[in-house]
Amino acid sequence: MILRHAGSRITNLSTRSTLRASRLPRASEIRSYTHPSHGGASPFTKRPQLATSSALRNFQLNKHASPILRSASTKPIPTPRNGFIRAVYRGAALLGTFVGISGILVVAFFIYDASTYREEPEAEDVPVSELALNPRRGGPKNLPIVDHFIDDDDCALNKAVKHKPKLVILGTGWGSVAILKQLNPGDYHVTVVSPSNHFLFTPMLPSATVGTLELRSLVEPVRRIVKRVQGHFLKGFAEDVDFSEKLVEVSAIDSSGQKQHFYVPYDKLVIGTGSVTNPHGVKGLEHCHFLKDISDARLIRNSIVRNLESACLPTTSDEERRRLLSFVVSGGGPTGVEFAAELFDMLNEDLTKFFPKVLRNEISVHVIQSRSHILNTYEEALSEYAEKRFAHDAVDVLTNSRVKEVHADKIIFTQKDESGKVVEKEIPMGFCLWSTGLSQTDFCKRLAAKLDGQNNKRALETDSHLRVVGAPLGDVYAIGDCATVQNNVSDHIISFLRTLAWEKGKDPEKMALSYSDWRGVAKRVKQRFPQASDHLRRLDKLFSAYDKDNSGTLDFGELRELLAQIDSKLTSLPATAQRAHQQGQYLGRKFSKIAQAAPGMTLNQMDYGDLDDAVYKAFEYKHLGSLAYIGNAAIFDFGGMSFSGGLVAVYLWRSIYFAQSVSFRTRCLLAMDWSKRALFGRDLMNF
Amino acid sequence: MILRHAGSRITNLSTRSTLRASRLPRASEIRSYTHPSHGGASPFTKRPQLATSSALRNFQLNKHASPILRSASTKPIPTPRNGFIRAVYRGAALLGTFVGISGILVVAFFIYDASTYREEPEAEDVPVSELALNPRRGGPKNLPIVDHFIDDDDCALNKAVKHKPKLVILGTGWGSVAILKQLNPGDYHVTVVSPSNHFLFTPMLPSATVGTLELRSLVEPVRRIVKRVQGHFLKGFAEDVDFSEKLVEVSAIDSSGQKQHFYVPYDKLVIGTGSVTNPHGVKGLEHCHFLKDISDARLIRNSIVRNLESACLPTTSDEERRRLLSFVVSGGGPTGVEFAAELFDMLNEDLTKFFPKVLRNEISVHVIQSRSHILNTYEEALSEYAEKRFAHDAVDVLTNSRVKEVHADKIIFTQKDESGKVVEKEIPMGFCLWSTGLSQTDFCKRLAAKLDGQNNKRALETDSHLRVVGAPLGDVYAIGDCATVQNNVSDHIISFLRTLAWEKGKDPEKMALSYSDWRGVAKRVKQRFPQASDHLRRLDKLFSAYDKDNSGTLDFGELRELLAQIDSKLTSLPATAQRAHQQGQYLGRKFSKIAQAAPGMTLNQMDYGDLDDAVYKAFEYKHLGSLAYIGNAAIFDFGGMSFSGGLVAVYLWRSIYFAQSVSFRTRCLLAMDWSKRALFGRDLMNF
Repeated sequence: MILRHAGSRITNLSTRSTLRASRLPRASEIRSYTHPSHGGASPFTKRPQLATSSALRNFQLNKHASPILRSASTKPIPTPRNGFIRAVYRGAALLGTFVGISGILVVAFFIYDASTYREEPEAEDVPVSELALNPRRGGPKNLPIVDHFIDDDDCALNKAVKHKPKLVILGTGWGSVAILKQLNPGDYHVTVVSPSNHFLFTPMLPSATVGTLELRSLVEPVRRIVKRVQGHFLKGFAEDVDFSEKLVEVSAIDSSGQKQHFYVPYDKLVIGTGSVTNPHGVKGLEHCHFLKDISDARLIRNSIVRNLESACLPTTSDEERRRLLSFVVSGGGPTGVEFAAELFDMLNEDLTKFFPKVLRNEISVHVIQSRSHILNTYEEALSEYAEKRFAHDAVDVLTNSRVKEVHADKIIFTQKDESGKVVEKEIPMGFCLWSTGLSQTDFCKRLAAKLDGQNNKRALETDSHLRVVGAPLGDVYAIGDCATVQNNVSDHIISFLRTLAWEKGKDPEKMALSYSDWRGVAKRVKQRFPQASDHLRRLDKLFSAYDKDNSGTLDFGELRELLAQIDSKLTSLPATAQRAHQQGQYLGRKFSKIAQAAPGMTLNQMDYGDLDDAVYKAFEYKHLGSLAYIGNAAIFDFGGMSFSGGLVAVYLWRSIYFAQSVSFRTRCLLAMDWSKRALFGRDLMNF
Repeated sequence: MILRHAGSRITNLSTRSTLRASRLPRASEIRSYTHPSHGGASPFTKRPQLATSSALRNFQLNKHASPILRSASTKPIPTPRNGFIRAVYRGAALLGTFVGISGILVVAFFIYDASTYREEPEAEDVPVSELALNPRRGGPKNLPIVDHFIDDDDCALNKAVKHKPKLVILGTGWGSVAILKQLNPGDYHVTVVSPSNHFLFTPMLPSATVGTLELRSLVEPVRRIVKRVQGHFLKGFAEDVDFSEKLVEVSAIDSSGQKQHFYVPYDKLVIGTGSVTNPHGVKGLEHCHFLKDISDARLIRNSIVRNLESACLPTTSDEERRRLLSFVVSGGGPTGVEFAAELFDMLNEDLTKFFPKVLRNEISVHVIQSRSHILNTYEEALSEYAEKRFAHDAVDVLTNSRVKEVHADKIIFTQKDESGKVVEKEIPMGFCLWSTGLSQTDFCKRLAAKLDGQNNKRALETDSHLRVVGAPLGDVYAIGDCATVQNNVSDHIISFLRTLAWEKGKDPEKMALSYSDWRGVAKRVKQRFPQASDHLRRLDKLFSAYDKDNSGTLDFGELRELLAQIDSKLTSLPATAQRAHQQGQYLGRKFSKIAQAAPGMTLNQMDYGDLDDAVYKAFEYKHLGSLAYIGNAAIFDFGGMSFSGGLVAVYLWRSIYFAQSVSFRTRCLLAMDWSKRALFGRDLMNF
């Protein structure tokens, strides 16, 4: 009776879940257990009073019960009761998981790798326009005009842009690449012309000179970038521009070494040809290295190692050794400072591992700076930090010094001491880097001479829509080092007053502006010259300051003085990668807007007046900040906020450039290079 | 009474293991459970008859019981009963583990990376011997003699080897590096002299010409390798050797561009200077590229890309384009074939992605081979496979052809057709690689002229212990391409017969050898000339073949004929990396044995006779096999076993070279490069 009752409850319980341990044994399942004092018979049938304990015991012994329960009464399971060993087991399980998944990823990568090989030689029939193979001749010099390209019909995407407006971009620097990445594919037929077929990530160039990074990690093939917009690339040198015929004259060296010239027609032209190094009229620069292009980095790297090897030779005297190991950097701007820092890193970290230790003691690094501080364009606190850092690293900083002449084995320079007296000194030199200043290319000089309104000796002047002054409106743009926005606010005074004058029915030159009129004019100025916004904050103060006759109004002359004063405060845009990049992005966006605004029509046939101004705002440069690497330390100048630091700052510095890299490929290469440096150091070989 | 009894048993059970589930509840732990039919009181105290079922129920509900048991009777746990969701959960757990451990590894790597920067400028006082800074002069030309080095006192390890026997190694190729890796540190004062400060992994050089691998992945700094034996490196060119004074004359170009000469003294000298390319007297080789050194690979890479860019220009005619894209390889050996294969890979896989498609159709790759098959040193089946592969890939293989003259834009060659008639043909050429044959360096020619017994025009002759013939015994060794083991078994006939003659008391020249005598002589021959073993297998057949007068014995003349015949069958050792590597390892081991055998003594003062022979066996070259890469396929010739295949064979080919890499650093770089190629393709830039 009792058993059945228990049995039915057992059944109830057992149906409630699948957990076996909770199931109570049925009577039939209970095996006999011989209690030592009871003999062998089944306690249930024979000794009802002992049913309790026996039943409990039987419950434990039931072979259908949970193995945990069962094993407790058989021999003990060899599971560790020690927490440490349990942790080891668990650790091994985690490690096993990790290794297993890593293995799967590696196999997956190999399978992917196997798919990247092309077994079949790929050769298809390719349509090429006859006009591309034999271009017509024309233009002022009767050269071939490249209306059609040999890859115009390569694929459907190329064909789609074949008859779009022609956008020609000169140069493959920061500005040009920024446009290419910003444009909408399919809006324009894009052609890039440049003597170099790669884009160089200039901020990290000093790292490549000593082997912290490899050369190829800093360059991206331009063809990979233009592909995004189905663009075309021609490896040639821009020689001249015919603004009326809208042709760019390009020269290229053919395989026999001769120069071939041809014309590339454009609807819109963007000049991003950059700058060249400024020799400042110093003699002997053939003994110096420069750091502008990637091949410069290779030459510098080989030269440094050559010096180190020569210093090891037994025939090298002490004096000669010291000269060979005297590295001079002429120019205390970011490039020069970063190079000195990287050089010092290499000499400190890798040199002594493999070269005779005596070399380390004979090394000297010198930085010659014409101003009183290195990195003088940065905040003063940061400048001082950098100088302190260099002093700590025994890098010799010579301020207020100008290089006078460079010989093969020494540098002659003049230094101004505190009293203002100029003293001539010389340093024995084994290696010299020339990193001071930039100047205009011959190409831009030629263009500036042709155009009206070009007064700047350093760069092509553009308006605030980045259109080259003097060229037909909306045809030619210029960005980057080769250009600067013209600061001629006061020249435009009439146009600022025009609307107001029309409303009041007066002659602009005879107007008297009230304060509210002035606010309206100021608004128009800011719109057209965004860089002037900084100087047009306190409109009330400006108004009262220039209202000389205290008439409560600004007359024409007073206004012109005010605007001229603003002009004088406006600086040229800095010649930096950041500025070029912003200008490139700006143009990319504007061109996209223009393409939307004028669909299907040849843009310049319709007279929109100032089309650029109608569809987009003027260019405003936002200085985001500057960084510099100064030898296992870095400084950051973010406008209001600035900080400097050691290794953590270096990691941040790397992260910023990592994020700014132009492609996933360069990011991977940078990461691999930095890992390589950590594992193996820099290698010191030259070939 | 019953309870207590059960309780004591409970206690017994509970002490047996730590499994909580097996512990039965004590009476005090059993909470009340209100069975619906029984009201709220504790069944134990009130209803003894129902104790069984209630006790069992209470056991289940006891909060100290196993959670499995407990939860079965409360509300159901929300564990998924769906197997799929459970699998998803488990997969997420595994993934989480993987991500977690990966994160830990990344952080650990960063921490390691942070430790590799040296914040403090390291400059310690370094002791440098005055004799190292101002070496004494002497020798035939009264030049500085480098008895002491500037880094001899750099550290304790360097000081320990300062006065050990001087081992000078010329060259930094396969042979030299193999010695360096085999030597025991501390046995010798090692100096390496070479004009290049890096070791080049030659088998993969063709991969670097098109960008499959980077240049730096194939080179290892020699200083890193010599550090293992506290060795020294001088970047200079070996000019001459004075064998009596035991001085090597070295020249180095100093920083002013002038040649400086000095002497390096040695106790043992190893010549591993390699070979130079053989021009075969063909005119116009200045228009060709070579592929011997790493800088050659860079020049080739730039040249190819330059051709591609020129081919894209609009001013390039069709004919010119075809010429620019005509790549000719002169020489059908492994180097030439692998280069053609790599080139084809690049043109097939990466060209059409970024260059106009028409270029792909105009490309032609030609291989000019003087024999009737390419890769003729391999098994014939493999040769044919390679040719079939090339035919499939449209690589034009011109067999039985010799280049006659190379012009800037074409190659003139002669081809022998089936009838044996020689026809002159020409191919327009945009790029030419010269990869046929090797010849002796001027340095080795100079040495061979000085020494007696040097009859080989191609290489320095050594005995089977790799000692240069004609030089004082045990002083000078030569390995690698610059040397070969002299095949002059028959010249040593007297020494082979000597022991026997002495035993028999006869004149060696008048002896008659029985068959068992002959077996003894053959054993001695094999010992001294291991390469002859292949030709001394069937001694019985040889005996009967040369016993011309059927006397049952070999007389002196018959024996000499037999040995001369063996001589004629012995080939020169192949000029391969494998052979140089084996010779280097052999010397490394032998030198270690010699160092053990003569501790603390200047080795050559004690007259050991043939010390080398006393401590070590003769050199035996074991040809392990040859590999070749032929364009997404590879062939393997392992002596008896050979096979060819597609992509799997390529992976095997890579694995073999991966394992043979000289250091962990190069292995990492190779792996990174192959991954880079898989992810991003080859980049086509030139700078």
